[in-house]
Amino acid sequence: MNHLIDEVRKQQPLIHNITNQVVMNFTANGLYAVGAAPVMAHAKEEVEEMAQIASALLLNIGTLTKEQVDAMVLAGKAANQAGVPVVLDPVGVGATTFRTDSAKRILQEVNVTCIRGNAGEIANLAGVGAQVRGVEGSSDIDVQQLASLAFDTLQVPLAITGEKDVVIDKNEQVIISNGHPLLTKVTGAGCLLSAVIAAFLSVSDKVTDAISGALSYYGVAAENAAEKHQYPGSFQIAFLDQLFAVDGAEVNKKKRITRSS
Amino acid sequence: MNHLIDEVRKQQPLIHNITNQVVMNFTANGLYAVGAAPVMAHAKEEVEEMAQIASALLLNIGTLTKEQVDAMVLAGKAANQAGVPVVLDPVGVGATTFRTDSAKRILQEVNVTCIRGNAGEIANLAGVGAQVRGVEGSSDIDVQQLASLAFDTLQVPLAITGEKDVVIDKNEQVIISNGHPLLTKVTGAGCLLSAVIAAFLSVSDKVTDAISGALSYYGVAAENAAEKHQYPGSFQIAFLDQLFAVDGAEVNKKKRITRSS
Amino acid sequence: MNHLIDEVRKQQPLIHNITNQVVMNFTANGLYAVGAAPVMAHAKEEVEEMAQIASALLLNIGTLTKEQVDAMVLAGKAANQAGVPVVLDPVGVGATTFRTDSAKRILQEVNVTCIRGNAGEIANLAGVGAQVRGVEGSSDIDVQQLASLAFDTLQVPLAITGEKDVVIDKNEQVIISNGHPLLTKVTGAGCLLSAVIAAFLSVSDKVTDAISGALSYYGVAAENAAEKHQYPGSFQIAFLDQLFAVDGAEVNKKKRITRSS
Repeated sequence: MNHLIDEVRKQQPLIHNITNQVVMNFTANGLYAVGAAPVMAHAKEEVEEMAQIASALLLNIGTLTKEQVDAMVLAGKAANQAGVPVVLDPVGVGATTFRTDSAKRILQEVNVTCIRGNAGEIANLAGVGAQVRGVEGSSDIDVQQLASLAFDTLQVPLAITGEKDVVIDKNEQVIISNGHPLLTKVTGAGCLLSAVIAAFLSVSDKVTDAISGALSYYGVAAENAAEKHQYPGSFQIAFLDQLFAVDGAEVNKKKRITRSS
Repeated sequence: MNHLIDEVRKQQPLIHNITNQVVMNFTANGLYAVGAAPVMAHAKEEVEEMAQIASALLLNIGTLTKEQVDAMVLAGKAANQAGVPVVLDPVGVGATTFRTDSAKRILQEVNVTCIRGNAGEIANLAGVGAQVRGVEGSSDIDVQQLASLAFDTLQVPLAITGEKDVVIDKNEQVIISNGHPLLTKVTGAGCLLSAVIAAFLSVSDKVTDAISGALSYYGVAAENAAEKHQYPGSFQIAFLDQLFAVDGAEVNKKKRITRSS
Repeated sequence: MNHLIDEVRKQQPLIHNITNQVVMNFTANGLYAVGAAPVMAHAKEEVEEMAQIASALLLNIGTLTKEQVDAMVLAGKAANQAGVPVVLDPVGVGATTFRTDSAKRILQEVNVTCIRGNAGEIANLAGVGAQVRGVEGSSDIDVQQLASLAFDTLQVPLAITGEKDVVIDKNEQVIISNGHPLLTKVTGAGCLLSAVIAAFLSVSDKVTDAISGALSYYGVAAENAAEKHQYPGSFQIAFLDQLFAVDGAEVNKKKRITRSS
């Protein structure tokens, strides 16, 4: 059985990123390592055209401004018209009113294929009450219970990532246990993951399969990198190397996935 | 005796950065390596809220715009109200009128806890006459004399960094001789240092102790990294690793600090 | 015979970059490694002053906005007045109307010393018909033929980079065959190259010599790096190291250049 990472490499999808300034470089290098092609464009004059020639669109509000959110909505609507999948990364939702309102506005105006965030961000977005601290919030709430609660409210497929990752849509919950704590020491590890999910969604119509495929692949690459380097600078570079080196056969061998419907 | 780096790691302060686009990624990764938590946010709609939940605020004018300076002033005033320490990094002051005017405006409207810059930037900001070239100005003026002159004018605790670092407030001058020339080959080495000073200020009320602690820790990490790698690409990664690896005991053993009151 | 890289290191030119947010950090670190001094500044309030104290100006439209293109035109005109060479990197031209129109506007209002792009970008900019896909377009058209066609239309010295690089002005075509495919896996490898060309143009009045010198030096550094590392994360770091380590003697030994007039 093939893993979707092999399909991503075959199709080399063009991922249009409207993302935060902190992670643009890491996201672009990460997408190249994955085998996709990144493009960053956020001017309102061009986002619709770019989204429509892209294979997938990523919207990430990490360093949002009013103008950028306007551009995200334009790009999102254009993507919807063209049948291009859209991933929303609601970075830091709950930390300020502006972030929360902006993420909600995007969800109202754009049909989003998947939301990826940590437990705090998803809880805040869904209004199910956890606390978020900065952009790396954590929540003591049970993450599978949170996934159910948040999906009930948001009605959008979710990837809640953390020590274990939970993927949920209307049909099933999938738990992915790959990954490594050093990822929390690398800025944009979550943001790049959202872009990788976008790449996987562009090569498969089965949403939870695409998301789970991205998560297991990403987690295996992190595990491999952490075997080589234990400090965050070297780990970050080794992780990019492993995103490039890991293939579907290796992911299939090392992935740890549980499903419940 | 403990070093403040251990206290930073214990408290994991949230550092709100309004900083330049060149160094955002390196600053965020550096703050993670230090043991702090970075957040970047610059929209006028959210900077006040973010500054008030932060442990410290960094204002860096490296790629300033009129809008960003407005946001810095809003954030700075909110930080002042909340008792959150504020660090100003006046990147490239003296190179253009806009930079000089913007830095002076921030100093007029915000109570700044510390200004960190190189000799050229501080001299230009204080109007004490050295020349600055780009963002990496140097000055032949004696740096301790410059510190006295600049502090007399600015009346804000200063960290003037270069071959040796000088910290000054109304009570004392502190000279820190740690560090390595390869830092001058890494973009944002000074900018990240300003963010690290912000992290140290958030865990100590003794301003010159906090600044000196940040400088000695940072310098020791650079020395360790330079022992491993002599080229700037590898050095940059090793430096992030060493920011993560160095602890207070090692800094106390290797720090080279002189005080004069 | 000396190579121009040695002259760059001697003069340490200040390169003013108005460039995209994805590559700012890599560009700045790359310019330091080369031996130049980077400055990034894009506010309309300061770009003219900065361009006039710079040794060269780089305009890169990778993440353009209307305001940024306005600033580029201001900076470009100021550079023209001061006799400062200007390099244009028309990233992604052809992908959207806004990019194409903006690049053409810059060419209309600013005297550009060199345009560097891949085959797709140059073909689109010259209106000679190839297709561009995202920012990494490729073209099946013969690249030397494309160079002639595009130069006839644009009347600006061109560097068309790819598997082999072609430099053209009114007197000659130069083919440079150094480089390595791993560069295509590093975000901003082309963007940094444009900045390096700017640095070389600032130390020589012979335009095709300066461009060819930059390309051969850059290509040799990539070849050296690829001997050490085959994965893109490690390669990127090794490449920065090699930009720092390679000197003129080594470039002269390894360069592969053909001229035709």
